[in-house]
Parts: sequence; C-alpha cells; structure tokens
Amino acid sequence: MGERDLIAAIRARLEPRADRIIRWVGDDAAIVRSRPLQVVSVDQMVDGVHFRLGHPDVTPADIGHRALAAALSDLAAMAADPGEAYVALGLPPSLPAADVLALVDAMETLAARTGVTIAGGDVTAAAVLTVGITAVGWADEEADLVRRDGARPGDRVGVTGPLGASGAGLALLSDDVAPGTVPPEVRRALLRAHLRPEPRFAAARALRDCGAGALIDLSDGVATDAGHVARESGVRIEIDLDALPLADGLTTVARATGVVPAVLAATGGEDYELLASVPRAGVEAAGEHVHWIGRVLPAGPDGPGVSFLAADGSTRSLAGYDHPVG
Amino acid sequence: MGERDLIAAIRARLEPRADRIIRWVGDDAAIVRSRPLQVVSVDQMVDGVHFRLGHPDVTPADIGHRALAAALSDLAAMAADPGEAYVALGLPPSLPAADVLALVDAMETLAARTGVTIAGGDVTAAAVLTVGITAVGWADEEADLVRRDGARPGDRVGVTGPLGASGAGLALLSDDVAPGTVPPEVRRALLRAHLRPEPRFAAARALRDCGAGALIDLSDGVATDAGHVARESGVRIEIDLDALPLADGLTTVARATGVVPAVLAATGGEDYELLASVPRAGVEAAGEHVHWIGRVLPAGPDGPGVSFLAADGSTRSLAGYDHPVG
Repeated sequence: MGERDLIAAIRARLEPRADRIIRWVGDDAAIVRSRPLQVVSVDQMVDGVHFRLGHPDVTPADIGHRALAAALSDLAAMAADPGEAYVALGLPPSLPAADVLALVDAMETLAARTGVTIAGGDVTAAAVLTVGITAVGWADEEADLVRRDGARPGDRVGVTGPLGASGAGLALLSDDVAPGTVPPEVRRALLRAHLRPEPRFAAARALRDCGAGALIDLSDGVATDAGHVARESGVRIEIDLDALPLADGLTTVARATGVVPAVLAATGGEDYELLASVPRAGVEAAGEHVHWIGRVLPAGPDGPGVSFLAADGSTRSLAGYDHPVG
Repeated sequence: MGERDLIAAIRARLEPRADRIIRWVGDDAAIVRSRPLQVVSVDQMVDGVHFRLGHPDVTPADIGHRALAAALSDLAAMAADPGEAYVALGLPPSLPAADVLALVDAMETLAARTGVTIAGGDVTAAAVLTVGITAVGWADEEADLVRRDGARPGDRVGVTGPLGASGAGLALLSDDVAPGTVPPEVRRALLRAHLRPEPRFAAARALRDCGAGALIDLSDGVATDAGHVARESGVRIEIDLDALPLADGLTTVARATGVVPAVLAATGGEDYELLASVPRAGVEAAGEHVHWIGRVLPAGPDGPGVSFLAADGSTRSLAGYDHPVG
C-alpha cells in the first residue's frame, strides 16, 4: 500500500465527534471552533525507547492506544474536557499497512470512548516507528482547570487506583521475571495496566468538584509526581507507604525483581492514575474516587518535597528509587 | 548534558509573546486563551528523509528553522494569524547539546519574527533526529480564513515569489550539479531558499484583503498544489509556463540536471510561496503581491485539474514530473 492509499485508509477510519470541528483530516490544517481556554499537551513514543515493536506481548493496537492515552492523561490531569488529538506517525517501510491501521483503529476506539476527535496529523517515513500526539482540551474558565500548585497544609492526598501495576507489567514484558511467577490472569491484568492505561477524565472532574486543589497524573510514579505537586505548591507531602493501594500480583512481581513492593508501587510510573490533594471539606465526597495515601504539611525546615512514612514510623525520601524497572 | 539540563536550557531560550499564554513550557500542558477559531497543522521532519544531518551545507539551525517554517506555512496559507507552536524533538544520543540548542535558537528566532510562541513540547531519545511541529493559528471568523475551494472561472492566478529556488537548492545539496556550475552567491541564495523558507503571513493577509478566493502554499510545487485548488474548487487552472517567475540561477541548475527550467520551477516544491486565485475586482490591488502565472477556467470536458500553456500555444499536463529533484 502506497503512502497516499495508506493516508486515505487512515482517514476512512476516523470520525469527527463534535460540532466544533469545521475542517479536519484531509485539509492542510484543521479548523476548530474554540472554547475560551485551550489546554495543549505533546507526547511522543518511539520504538526501542517507549515500547518494543515485535515483542510477542505487544500489538500495534497497544502502541496506538498507549500513546494516545498518555497524551490525553495530561489533559485529564488538569480536569480539562477532552477535545482533539493530532497524530504524527513516523513509519518504517517494513511496517505492514495492516499494523498501521490496527494502531490507528485502537486510537480511534479510545478517542470515541473519551469524546475526542482525531482531527489531523502527518505521516512520514522514519527509521523506527514513532507516534507523536498533540492533545487539545478545553475549558470555559480557569476555575474549571486544576493545576499542580494548589495543595495546602491540612489537605489529604489520594490516588484514583492501584499503583505499580504498569511497572509490574513492564517488568513482566522485560523478562525480568521467570515465566509462571504470577498466574496467567494476573499476568494479563498487569500487562494490560501497562499497555492499555486509561485517561481519568471522569475522576478528574469529580475530584475538581470536590474542591481538589492540585491534580497530577502518575506518569513517573507517586514519588516523583507528588514531588512536582509539593514543590509547585510549596508544601511537604507525607505519604504512608503502607497505605499505597497495591495492584494484584504486584507483591509477587516486586519480590521476583528484588524490589520492595511499596517502592515499586511508589516509583513504577506510567499508571496514569491521578493523585489529588483535597481540602478537609471535600474529603468525604472525594473518598468515593480515591484511596487516601497521605497528607499535606507545611514545607518545614527541609523545604517542599515528599516524605515517605515507613511502618516503623520513620520518614525517609525515596530519592534514587525512580523508575527501578523502567 | 543530561535530558533534564537540556530541557531546562531549551526553556531558558524561549519567550512567551502574547497575553493569551496563561501556562506554557514547563507544565504538563500549556493553557492558552483562545480566539473563536483555531487552525491546527502538524508537520514532521526526519533525518535521512527530509534533511541530512551532518551535510556540510546544512546546520542544525537550518533544520530547526525549516521544520517550523513548513508548519507555519500551512497556517499562512489559510490567512490565519500565527499563534503557538508545540515542538516534539526526537534526539539521537550522539547529537551534541550545542546542536540541539542551535536548532531551538533558530526556531525561536523565526517564532519571534512571526509573533509565534513556542508554548510546549516534548523531548525524547530517538534513533535519528526527528522534529515534529504542531502549529496553532487563530481567526475571529470563518470569513477571515481562505481555503482552497474558492477559485472561480475568471479569476487570475498568481504566486508570491520566484519558483524552483528550493528545488534548485536541493539539487545543489544532492551533488547533482558539478561544483562551480553557478556562482557562489547564486549558490548561497538557492541553498538559502531551500533551507530557510519563510511563511508568507503578510502576503496571505494582503491577498485575502484583495478578495482571494483560494490560497495554498507551494509545498509540493505549482503543478501539484494548483491541482489541489483546482479539484477542491471544481475548476480548471491554466498556467502559462513562460510566465513562471524563475529564481536566479534556476535555469543553470535545471540544465545541469537535465530538467527544463520551467518544469523544475513548476514541480520543485518546498518554495513555500503562496498561490492565490484572485477575482477580477482584486487583480489590480493584488498585483503588488503576486506574479500572475495563469487563470481559472470552467472545469470543461476533462474535469477539474491543471493545464500548462506552452510557448507554442499548446496545453499539456505535467503529470509524472512531480518532484524531479526530490
């Protein structure tokens, strides 16, 4: 299939899903009717860096889904409404057209589920498969967006789902774990957590409506991402390691790779769950959407940052533990 | 220089240039105050496909400039006002940080000159240098944007500058032409046309104000791009080959590569000049901004398309001549 036919086949698989789309794929440029505030995030994934094309457990559809999900997650993390995605594909000549279309189909499925229109893009030859996404979200006023800088002493800190599943899935993909270490259905769930993350738009809106002062998506892991919130908010965040919700099978995988389970949960990254800082007034309502894992304190003598509360009551930093399986 | 330091150094070189930028580089996502209509274009350039890193006549600054200029040109071609650019860089580990910063500096210089803010982006490792740009432009109403579908019989067709210079520059870079074939200053000008194209925002606005019904930027060459306008407008465009404005030195380079000069001018591509279809009432005013090269006719028995008028008065298509030097 030549490049023109491939582009035509890609177009034929996409659908516009909002009145605001005036011109879209097929034109030099898309034309979109705006809402007052535009939120834009850029994300790219490259074969050999962010995924391994040809790995027996990784399909082209997984690659497409994950690239779009990661970009959309940045919009969800601000409680923006999903809008459009623009997709830049760099395609090695050896990649079959069917694989490209499977990748696009998975993106379109995720786009449909989240109300996103894939409104434009670019296709070029490249040495290795490259997927670049520009995700555009919308809001009507600044108060509808939640940033990272509004965590305040007295807030509680929660996360929207189990942690470390993606990191454990990556460890399984990397063959760091002997076959049969975890039961097949647990293995599938952990791989799925890594390959098919979901942007948490609904949870973000719910947490905003509970008054969350700060939100971030867990792309690098709680240890790093809570650090971003702490520094931008000028506070100390204390996280109770024993309170981290662990994914099923995480403990087994962590032990097999020689990592403390709670440390893998705190540093594994790419879970794309949200971390929220919620003031006292919103804690009861927010409890439906999050597992509480810590609290916000004044910055104190050590300055803004994250402390982890261990079982023995001591606090420590997890510096140096970033991405132990990445 | 590590990735974090490099990203910090990139940020330090960029400046926001509009009140509408609320949050920009350094956040998970940029927040921008919108105007009613958003125009979005995506473009990527890959080493070995769109440029050759390490070629003695091509600097990293040229690569950065050209990638941003090509993306902005799509906005100019709709007469949109320039807004923001989002830059996705895929960097091979062997590329010195100084080269990356030179590439970014050239982008920022072009952004400053065109009133664009580089408002966000992403940096990742990659096998070869990849530059992906998402360019965002703005307009207040649809009538301020000019598409490709408004060429009408009776219009005149013009281009904003000499043609074929970029194609000739590419031929010189490709060593298709013996050294010394053109004088050094002509060589420099042709290389510059290829490496440093300019998005024609001012000309686009002027042509819109003269009532241009269709505009397109010449990324693929007049033969192909006039074809887009003809098909989308449902008309035949007749172009006088002898009227094409030829860049200085083009004739020499074309002959050295065995191509008819006017054919190189019509098919060379990447000049990023604009082609406009202007109704009679606007012709006098538009004459200041364009060289007239043809006229718009009804589609006729052959359907929409482009015909070239040769010196002997015969018309012919240039099908098959696309990108003879590409």
